Amino acid sequence: MSDLQIRPATSADIAAIVAMLADDTLGAQRESPDDLTPYAAAFERLAGDPNQHLVVAERGGRVVGTLQLTVIPGLSLRGSSRALIEAVRVHADERASGLGTQFIEWAIDESRRQGCQLVQLTSNASRTDAHRFYERLGFEASHVGFKLQL
Amino acid sequence: MSDLQIRPATSADIAAIVAMLADDTLGAQRESPDDLTPYAAAFERLAGDPNQHLVVAERGGRVVGTLQLTVIPGLSLRGSSRALIEAVRVHADERASGLGTQFIEWAIDESRRQGCQLVQLTSNASRTDAHRFYERLGFEASHVGFKLQL
Repeated sequence: MSDLQIRPATSADIAAIVAMLADDTLGAQRESPDDLTPYAAAFERLAGDPNQHLVVAERGGRVVGTLQLTVIPGLSLRGSSRALIEAVRVHADERASGLGTQFIEWAIDESRRQGCQLVQLTSNASRTDAHRFYERLGFEASHVGFKLQL
Repeated sequence: MSDLQIRPATSADIAAIVAMLADDTLGAQRESPDDLTPYAAAFERLAGDPNQHLVVAERGGRVVGTLQLTVIPGLSLRGSSRALIEAVRVHADERASGLGTQFIEWAIDESRRQGCQLVQLTSNASRTDAHRFYERLGFEASHVGFKLQL
């Protein structure tokens, strides 16, 4: 397989990212890949925020993964910053390729480079394979994740 | 009891906030209220980020609660922004006063005002009272929260 490149997303990647967000048991119900307008507006909000790092993984000129890393300063833990990982998706063709592992390891390294002392994420309780995956990478399932739709 | 005011934190509130972070079963092990230097540096990082809202609750001129709300733009959920609540603390003297409820309801309303379509938080698995509290406020314990110390 050709080399993997992980790089900041550009507006040209929006369609490929949204296609991956929608190609998912949970995502299929809540995304609208046929209308990219709201995604383009959100991309502008992301691009204007220096603590947001929306990235894609590219292999052979094709976008095969995406994730969003947010750096969050804070007072707790002696003034630590923490990194939050959201919206991790790997293209269906790549799911046995080790890309997921490389991608999360990249996010952990990038969090360190950004001066964070903690990396956190939540995973839907139904995604039990993902839970084992994160535990293998050293994450501890120490918290309950609460969500409230507005 | 006199009226509660919820307002943005200033640098004059740092000592009161750190005292509340440290006055907690988990926080006692990981905060250093005797040395505010790292907290003052973190406060500057927070103050420079327009998506960070570190607030305090004040009653009768005394700081009795704190929380941090982070607005996170994103592509998923049709370009929704989400709000993350972190570092919620209520002063020991106020724990039966309804302040916790007022405070989280304020955070939900503020998330709506900031254009968010989702509010999320994680709570340590050991804080079972807190879990019931968030469920009463409408949150769903739908996710597992993973953490990795760097």
